[in-house]
Amino acid sequence: MESKIIYNAIGTIHTNYHDIEGTPIQPSSAQGSKGEIEVFKDFEDGLKDLECFSHIILIYHLHLSKGFSLEVIPFLDTVKRGLFSTRAPRRPNPIGISVVKLIKIKNNILEIENIDVIDGTPLLDIKPFVSEMDGITDYKIGWLSEHTSDLHSHFSDNRFK
Amino acid sequence: MESKIIYNAIGTIHTNYHDIEGTPIQPSSAQGSKGEIEVFKDFEDGLKDLECFSHIILIYHLHLSKGFSLEVIPFLDTVKRGLFSTRAPRRPNPIGISVVKLIKIKNNILEIENIDVIDGTPLLDIKPFVSEMDGITDYKIGWLSEHTSDLHSHFSDNRFK
Repeated sequence: MESKIIYNAIGTIHTNYHDIEGTPIQPSSAQGSKGEIEVFKDFEDGLKDLECFSHIILIYHLHLSKGFSLEVIPFLDTVKRGLFSTRAPRRPNPIGISVVKLIKIKNNILEIENIDVIDGTPLLDIKPFVSEMDGITDYKIGWLSEHTSDLHSHFSDNRFK
Repeated sequence: MESKIIYNAIGTIHTNYHDIEGTPIQPSSAQGSKGEIEVFKDFEDGLKDLECFSHIILIYHLHLSKGFSLEVIPFLDTVKRGLFSTRAPRRPNPIGISVVKLIKIKNNILEIENIDVIDGTPLLDIKPFVSEMDGITDYKIGWLSEHTSDLHSHFSDNRFK
């Protein structure tokens, strides 16, 4: 079954990052970075009740990502890893997810913080962040466990350009 | 800018849930539910290094979801809420995300637990679950805060059929 799945952006994410190089690789390295989401007017009514959540999950299309390799050297490592064990942007379906802090909603504009994507990224969906729902208490993070202390200081270089 | 975004499934999620009615609404109500992910052979090499992670994030297409309303009565509530403040399946772009427990990988087949989707759901992406990356320490969950004690006992009814 190889049927195509077709989506349309519901909005645009605006940030201060205009180049892949220098864009934070994860929200943890983007603490405080302010951004703005413009949700297209057609979808504004869906934003009701969202302002009471402090954090939201953004699902977006990594529109600058071209092609993919099934093994990549991630930002935090020096050896090749299987693509699905990384969050590298070049993926068969270049979908990104970020949990960001919601500051304010005014009509169709959301003010957010801790955003780690490039300006102009097309937004696909917004979901409330409710970690209770995931029910994870203990977990292992594979090859990344040696690199967690580096997480807060890493910004993108040009390897996925 | 209304350009279409086109994705193709990279695999299929197999579960014991064959009907929308009775399918858990969140992983927390799906504790222990076993499932299997078949990643298509073309993408098998991307699974390398993934087995060292205890939990993974699945991104999938809610293929049975038809249409959407911008206000819905969520499973856990009795009043209408803005769609984006809920995880209701009928969305402008019907994308679902779940954090599941990874038990084992054999070739292109992943054995998973705590899965809350219907059998045959098309898989779009797999990412490692690394909560450090999100860096969230305290948060508010809006209208849901009155309903967290109900989360573990809720299964889908027929409202999104």
